[in-house]
Amino acid sequence: MRVVSEGVGRQMAGASWIRRMFEKGLELKQQYGAENVFDFSLGNPDIPPPAAAREALLGLAEEALRPLGLGYCPNAGLPVFREALAQRLARQQGVAVTSGQVVVTCGAAGALTSFFRAVIEPGDEVLCPAPYFVEYGAYCGHFGGVLRPVPARAPDFQPDLEAMEAAVTDRTRAIIINSPNNPTGCVYGRATLERLGALVDRVNATRERPLFLVSDEPYRFLAYDGVEVPPVLPLTPFSLVLGSFSKSLSLAGERVGYLAANPAMPEVATLMGAVTMTNRTLGFVNAPVLGQRLALALLDTGVDVGVYDRRRQAMARVLDAAGIRYAMPQGAFYFFPEAPGGDDQAFVRALLGHHVLAVPGAGFGFPGHFRLTFCVEESVIERSAAGFAAAVRDVCGGGV
Amino acid sequence: MRVVSEGVGRQMAGASWIRRMFEKGLELKQQYGAENVFDFSLGNPDIPPPAAAREALLGLAEEALRPLGLGYCPNAGLPVFREALAQRLARQQGVAVTSGQVVVTCGAAGALTSFFRAVIEPGDEVLCPAPYFVEYGAYCGHFGGVLRPVPARAPDFQPDLEAMEAAVTDRTRAIIINSPNNPTGCVYGRATLERLGALVDRVNATRERPLFLVSDEPYRFLAYDGVEVPPVLPLTPFSLVLGSFSKSLSLAGERVGYLAANPAMPEVATLMGAVTMTNRTLGFVNAPVLGQRLALALLDTGVDVGVYDRRRQAMARVLDAAGIRYAMPQGAFYFFPEAPGGDDQAFVRALLGHHVLAVPGAGFGFPGHFRLTFCVEESVIERSAAGFAAAVRDVCGGGV
Repeated sequence: MRVVSEGVGRQMAGASWIRRMFEKGLELKQQYGAENVFDFSLGNPDIPPPAAAREALLGLAEEALRPLGLGYCPNAGLPVFREALAQRLARQQGVAVTSGQVVVTCGAAGALTSFFRAVIEPGDEVLCPAPYFVEYGAYCGHFGGVLRPVPARAPDFQPDLEAMEAAVTDRTRAIIINSPNNPTGCVYGRATLERLGALVDRVNATRERPLFLVSDEPYRFLAYDGVEVPPVLPLTPFSLVLGSFSKSLSLAGERVGYLAANPAMPEVATLMGAVTMTNRTLGFVNAPVLGQRLALALLDTGVDVGVYDRRRQAMARVLDAAGIRYAMPQGAFYFFPEAPGGDDQAFVRALLGHHVLAVPGAGFGFPGHFRLTFCVEESVIERSAAGFAAAVRDVCGGGV
Repeated sequence: MRVVSEGVGRQMAGASWIRRMFEKGLELKQQYGAENVFDFSLGNPDIPPPAAAREALLGLAEEALRPLGLGYCPNAGLPVFREALAQRLARQQGVAVTSGQVVVTCGAAGALTSFFRAVIEPGDEVLCPAPYFVEYGAYCGHFGGVLRPVPARAPDFQPDLEAMEAAVTDRTRAIIINSPNNPTGCVYGRATLERLGALVDRVNATRERPLFLVSDEPYRFLAYDGVEVPPVLPLTPFSLVLGSFSKSLSLAGERVGYLAANPAMPEVATLMGAVTMTNRTLGFVNAPVLGQRLALALLDTGVDVGVYDRRRQAMARVLDAAGIRYAMPQGAFYFFPEAPGGDDQAFVRALLGHHVLAVPGAGFGFPGHFRLTFCVEESVIERSAAGFAAAVRDVCGGGV
């Protein structure tokens, strides 16, 4: 019997690399003990939420028994939270965002699916620089959209704007960018972004159905060495930003994020009304109220970014010692090094042999590299050094 | 410019009646004061959550600063919660459900969209008895499914099984039922359900792609006068039940629900794997962790059902006094009376004139009736009596 649809059956057969490594990791941990497995596969932020989270939850406990205290809230989010988000985004982006241009969503993922549902006709295309977070393909694919990755330029992984412009067709509905980037850790420079905004404006000059520039930026808070993460909303009227509090507040499980549009976008109210509706009809209904209230209480705080920076340095030392080449991440919590020997899947298998979990670049549409996530304690990173060195020897023989 | 897709644009133009009444209500409340508006339009449970919610949240506050305490959890839900749900469902349904057949979802709505995404091919049909919750159409429509309502038999609103069987085609993928029912308050009888299960089995005897019987039962806990709400899983191997804690625990805003399948269903593991995947890729990722932990802590409690029963009696007295005809609801918190004068939209307009908010039956695919929700205090119901009586006079002149 065929209990699932063809498309979903195909997706299941090609289960994501990240998930496969996750399952492999569970096996290894059961077999060898968690302390003997070095898991750099999953981006589940392990730094505790800001200390104020405790106080905020105590306050929510006192309010929870109020009638409607945990009841439905408006589909676009708690008005007080939308307002606070709008003020924060206006400051951050340097554009006069008001609450009418903000929808609170179930994380960044919920923002993307609600947005794609609102704008995509079957056959529409979405461009993104590769490597990229593979679930983008599923997010637009639910509604008949097709993701068209455009390879970025190694070694710095800035988007290739010539290739991007050449890839635009009449069916291109959105360009999605992610900076600081998962999986490369690179941050897009101001000049590159300004050229991207100009490209979008050029395309839209002759369009009835606009091309949107969508910036997925859950790692905006996490840039190192004072590097600038330029705002995206000023680049073109057809710009949107989305993010979440999964990483900045370590609230990934509570699913709170947002989508905000440039207030200068033509018919922006129609678009935000549509996203509010699709957010409801896709079954989110509203972002979880406890998470909204918690994120509101913590909006001016953040996790200790210094911890991630120290891990970044530790990981760099481990890779250096193993002779593995990489671009130092400017943001987020990922390295995307070159696979010694050139074959990312072979190298990731070699790492597995030494109980080190990584994800091959193939899982991000960019073979020849592999991804490491540093959501683990510094001591785990340090203890993984021998495994990296041994895996390099396995694939390259004597020397790299 | 066309910023949204054609389909979504059409849906926005036909905004749901419930939402329209909600907005009308806000206007009236601003103009006349909330205490002078009688709002029976929205089903936002106003009884406080069980008292244990406070204690549970205090406990969560103490745990929140643990690393990963609010982090991602498995896409199918916290293992301890899935296990507890499976045990509860096994008892409730009399079928040996285990945690592998349970997926924790973002409310009942998230259960439905994740399920439809997993099984529907474009052009597939979904049957449901009318009147029905109109968002069912959007839930399957996102993925190219088409909802085909089959009118129930007034005045008791039991499903019309002859009409249902006649409506089944090769493309019918699911029959969705909802008992205790929104909007009618009726509860489907055991004999009717058994005939429905037999119908599904008859159809599946010759099918490669099975027809599923899907029971949406967030009101299972809320039946009056000791009426039985028969379990649905025993009816056919191709049965699924879904529900939420929105009503039973007054947690509607926190978005926690579940989907569970009959363990005897062929390829049930494939189906549950698919729903776990679509739950992730639709952007839910996992049901909110705070809500999952809260629902787990409260699983053996419930809101005070007696409050709803007293309101039901009060509403019946108000309708009797106004000479409005109705079937006494056996469950849920809705009345679905006949519209005096026969025109539901005209009568709802007349009610509005007296600051009483209701939803016309047209909003549930069943004109000639209207829906009243008793999620308001008994005193509000009592004070609305004059408005109902006056509206009846408006549309019927001297007598009903």
